[in-house]
This record gives sequence, C-alpha cells and structure tokens, in this order.
Amino acid sequence: MTTSAPPAPLAPGATIGILGGGQLGRMLALAAARLGLSCHIYCPEPDSPAFAVAAAHTVAGYEDRAALEAFAKHCDAVTYEFENVPATTIETLTDLLPARPSGRSLAVCQDRFEEKTLVEELGIGTARWRAVDSLADLRSAVADLGTPCLLKTRRLGYDGKGQARIADDGGIEAAWEAIAAAPAILEALVPFALEVSVVAVRGANGGFAAYDVTENRHEGGILKVSTVPAAIADDTAEAAIEIARRIAAALDHVGVLAVEMFVLRDGTSETLLVNEIAPRVHNTGHWTIEACPANQFEAHIRAVAGWPLPSMARVADAEMTNLIGSDAGSWRELAAEPGAALHLYGKREARPGRKMGHVTRLRPRR
Amino acid sequence: MTTSAPPAPLAPGATIGILGGGQLGRMLALAAARLGLSCHIYCPEPDSPAFAVAAAHTVAGYEDRAALEAFAKHCDAVTYEFENVPATTIETLTDLLPARPSGRSLAVCQDRFEEKTLVEELGIGTARWRAVDSLADLRSAVADLGTPCLLKTRRLGYDGKGQARIADDGGIEAAWEAIAAAPAILEALVPFALEVSVVAVRGANGGFAAYDVTENRHEGGILKVSTVPAAIADDTAEAAIEIARRIAAALDHVGVLAVEMFVLRDGTSETLLVNEIAPRVHNTGHWTIEACPANQFEAHIRAVAGWPLPSMARVADAEMTNLIGSDAGSWRELAAEPGAALHLYGKREARPGRKMGHVTRLRPRR
Repeated sequence: MTTSAPPAPLAPGATIGILGGGQLGRMLALAAARLGLSCHIYCPEPDSPAFAVAAAHTVAGYEDRAALEAFAKHCDAVTYEFENVPATTIETLTDLLPARPSGRSLAVCQDRFEEKTLVEELGIGTARWRAVDSLADLRSAVADLGTPCLLKTRRLGYDGKGQARIADDGGIEAAWEAIAAAPAILEALVPFALEVSVVAVRGANGGFAAYDVTENRHEGGILKVSTVPAAIADDTAEAAIEIARRIAAALDHVGVLAVEMFVLRDGTSETLLVNEIAPRVHNTGHWTIEACPANQFEAHIRAVAGWPLPSMARVADAEMTNLIGSDAGSWRELAAEPGAALHLYGKREARPGRKMGHVTRLRPRR
Repeated sequence: MTTSAPPAPLAPGATIGILGGGQLGRMLALAAARLGLSCHIYCPEPDSPAFAVAAAHTVAGYEDRAALEAFAKHCDAVTYEFENVPATTIETLTDLLPARPSGRSLAVCQDRFEEKTLVEELGIGTARWRAVDSLADLRSAVADLGTPCLLKTRRLGYDGKGQARIADDGGIEAAWEAIAAAPAILEALVPFALEVSVVAVRGANGGFAAYDVTENRHEGGILKVSTVPAAIADDTAEAAIEIARRIAAALDHVGVLAVEMFVLRDGTSETLLVNEIAPRVHNTGHWTIEACPANQFEAHIRAVAGWPLPSMARVADAEMTNLIGSDAGSWRELAAEPGAALHLYGKREARPGRKMGHVTRLRPRR
C-alpha cells in the first residue's frame, strides 16, 4: 500500500465537516474550535448534541446526495464520528473533498468479517472465530468452537447491540433469531484477565503516535470505566501499541483509531488478542481531555487537517466513568465532588443504555 | 453587605447568555458545552469568534432594549466577557433574569476611580494616585506624585489603551491631549520587581477559591507571557489570594475575577500593590485550560449557573504566551512543537495588537 503525498494543511479558519452529531462529534467540534478551525456537522437527527457547538449544521439523510454535495461545498475536509456511515456516503464525499479516514478504514471496521480477516492476515492474535451465513453454518461453527460462545452480526454492532451469547447447543436457534438471521461471525469466548485499548493517531504522512494503554471495564456490553495506566506489564503495553501501529498502517488510516484488546494471563506471561477496531475517536480515550495537553479529539482534528500530530504526553493518572441513562441524574453530586471533571453531552432524554456524559478523576502519576 | 439566598442551580440543558463575542466568550462557551449547558452570545460585531461555538447568537447593540429583551427570553442567566458593557445594559437585563456578576462588580471595575477607592477603603495597597478632571488637576497631581507617572482614563481602558506616560513636567499637556481630556486618574510609577495576578472565583453563596498565583510579563501594555507558579514567597502568594478574596467579597462578586498586582521587593521582603481588577475571566488564567482539570472558564460558568465551585487543583507548571497580531502567522511552527498547546481564536484579520491566540507549555511541577 502506498501513501500519496499529503495535501497542504488546512489553514486556521478552514471548515471540517463531521458526519454524525453525537457526543463524539460534539467533542471533535470543541477541539477544532481551540485550533481556530470551524466545524459543519451533518446528521440525520434534528437536535443533535454537536449542533450546539458548531458553526453550521445540516439535517439530512446519509444517502441524500444533493445534501451531501451542498455540505461538501461548505467544507475543506470531511471526517466522521462513527463507523456506521454508509460506504456510499463516503464515496460520494471522497469525489468532492479530502475524506479522512478514507473509505478503506470504514469498509474494514464496519464489517466484523473484514476486520477479523485483516487482523489474522497481519498475524495478530484474535479470539477463534467462524463466519456464519446460515443456521447450518452456525451449528457447525458452535460444534467447532464449543460453548459458551458469542454470535455477532457482521455489521452495525456497537455497545453490545447485534450480539447474542450461546450458552449451550440448545441456545443456537434463539441466538440466530436474536440477530435476525443477519450475516454474522461466531466467536469463542476468551478467558481474559482484563480488557485494554490503545487510542492512537496516524497522520496523512504515515506518522503514528499512541496514548498510554487504557484498561477498560464493561457492564452489559457498554463501557463503564476506563483507567490509565492499565495494570499490565510494560512490554505488554509496548506490544499493544505496536499492534495498533501495524493495524493503522495496514488500513492506511488517517486520524485517531482505537484498538480494543483482551489480555490473557498465564502466570506472569501476558498475551494480547484483538477484539475490535474503531476507526475514530473512542470512549476509552475520553480521559485524555483532562490528563493530556492534547486530547484524542485534537489529535484527530490535527490528522484530518493535515497538521503535525500532537504530543501524547500525559500529566496525570486518570479514571473515566461513563454516565449511562439515569446515571446523569446525579449531576448535582458529581458537580460537587472536588476534582471530578464532569462532562454532559446535552442530550435531553436519558434513555436506558444511552451515554449521557462522563466523569474523569485525575490522580498524581504513579 | 448581605448575600441573599442563591437561586436553584441551572439544570443541564439551560442556556447562559454571554455579552461579548470575543475569545473570552468563545472559551466560556466551550466550557459551558462540556457541562451540558448551552450558550447564546450577544455581540454588536457580526462574525464574532464566539458565534461559531454557541447554540445561538444575537447581533445587536448593547443599548438596543428590544434586542436585549428578546435575548433575555432565550436565556436562563446572563454574564459578560468584558467589563465595558454599558451599565444600562446590565440594568435592563437584571430586571429580566439573573445577571452574574451583578452590576456592582461592573460599576466598580469599569471606572478606575471607583476601583482605586474600593481598594483603598479595604486598606489594601495600591500605587499612589490622584483623581484628574482638568488640566489644572493634572498639573497639581504631577507636582504631588512626581515624574515619571501614568495618566489613565477612568473608563474604557484595556491593553494599554487610554493611558499616557508623563516623563517630566514638559509632557503634561501632551498626555492630557493624548487621553482627549477624559476624566482620569494619575498614578505614581511603581518600582515593581514583578507583576502577578490572582484568578479566583466566588460563588453565589459566598464560597471562594483561587488558582495559584501567576507571574505576568507585559510588552507594550499588552500581556505577553504568564507563568505559574510565580517566583514569589509562599506567604506573598497567600497574601495575594487573601487580597483577591477580600475584593471579591466587597463586590459581592459572583463568577471569576482577576486581580493584577505589583510585587515590590526590599531585600527578602515582598509587598503587594493592587494594580487592576477585572470582574471576569482573564488572559492571565488561560494556562488553567491545560494545567487544571477545571479551568477558569468552567469555574466562571459554574458560578454563573449556581453550581458548586470546582477544585482549583493544578497538575503541572505552565507558561502561556499570547499570540498578538502577526505572531499567529507562526501557527505551523507552533503546531509542530511537541507539547505546545496551541489555541487560535478564529479571528480573520491579524491587526497589530490584536490577540489572535495563545500557546501554553506545561512543565512537570517543581
């Protein structure tokens, strides 16, 4: 894969288009503003959280070609806050202006089959898995991998959605129905000691930098707490960053990406298996807002704008806790907690499972 | 002075109106967004830097009563980013919604005579000074204070504007013409060792907190560099914060305020003289964005919203350098400097003396 010469950096005052208007788009727009760059948010949902902090927004569907063309005219480059943007949207935009990351990052990361295949081709460890396109496939895959195991749709999965756990052979048909017989993969369950992620950035010129490895705890399939540094050996952390570097290079990725990994322990020996790749800023990198002079949102905006990558320096240890659904009702207590950095995303309705905000607590570096 | 019971805090989703759309309004809006609060910017200048990061804006004059009333209808509380808002503007708004800080902070701080009088009444040191309302007054004041000395208009002074230095008696008339015969004060020149400021916040319930004292260096009357911690004795720093606390209480101030002081040295002994009070977020507090989990803009928004004051914790030493006029042309080099946190304000035209951005460099705490 070759990387063509990057175009000139966007000058201050330029406009970055962002597909998606959720909290990630909102925090990207805040970071862009610090650098003197404007944002134009494109999102089908009216009243999206990012609209309130951007110079302009468009409410239109991702496959509305006329709206995309009008949007492109107002922007100098375009990026996205989530990987489930239709591939055709990026194709339309790529013809009109620089789109970063490119369609390849999106194509691979929005399909678990493509993602697993890439990771395997790179010789990087992953949970054992099988492609599943029919109930017959599923039976054969369960026989192969054993139970318990996880059935996951190839596309449109996030925060535990599009997944079904199979405890034993009796659960096969129910799982197949739960994912609506969609093209899927079956994964062996991994007896991991802990989950970590690497949030990293790759520039248009191939430069790469990573924040310190983060340890993550999920509840009900949704991230609950991220802690940095992760309680892993130094060489495991180095290996995790090297994995992210190789994946980013293989995708010719431009921007932030996050690689979620399992850490397996056997005595003092630690092994890494890649779980998921997100070609975007990531919930497990929110601690960088307080703990780093340049956070993940700035890192992404810099890469999209063709600016030099920032330092990944970290000035404190940190713990980030998501406020999910009704958790955000405790904003008064959190606002009163000394040293707790509270973030609320401006969402009106606190539905169960909805990410409403987060809180980061810093500690002196160990 | 009594402090009435503070009203209930604004809930997430509420809107804070901000008078003034410059970089301070912009950074206030960014801080409000993190807390899930919306901003509506009111500013006479179209294309103001804060507009691009706020949910709404109004372009209208500060004395346009109908526009102020319409603005108030969209807001749950109002504040300002600069002290030269006409008193009548705040009076109009105070009748309609909570205005923080109140008109008293503004009335005192927009008039050097009132400001000096307050400081003196509190028994706090200041440069020797005289009120000057005529050329005859000025001659008599110069005879009294000696030369060199500084003539400053009572109102509308900032960044060295509205000031004239009088080197000797021959310069009296020219100075009087330079400030257009406006009501003024004459100040004795202070042989200071260094300049410092305290950026502090006071809540509606009378709570008070201050960031660490900052050392400041001006060039041509405009702040160039702020460094924290200031190179002063610990007890001088404590005394500086106590001065800010007493001034904030005397004003019944709600929100951030900054008190600029001179440090005089005699051997190892240090004396503080108050130079200026700014009833708002302040250029000498910009380093808090990277060096503190809760920066001065968040502190102000919290006070305006009736939320608990944040921790003033500082995780690193810092140096902030203003980018004035053509300085901002070096954005490429600054963006490439490892660890330099670059801020650009989104101003199109780099006029001489105009604050275009700033850069903060962190160092490990000493």
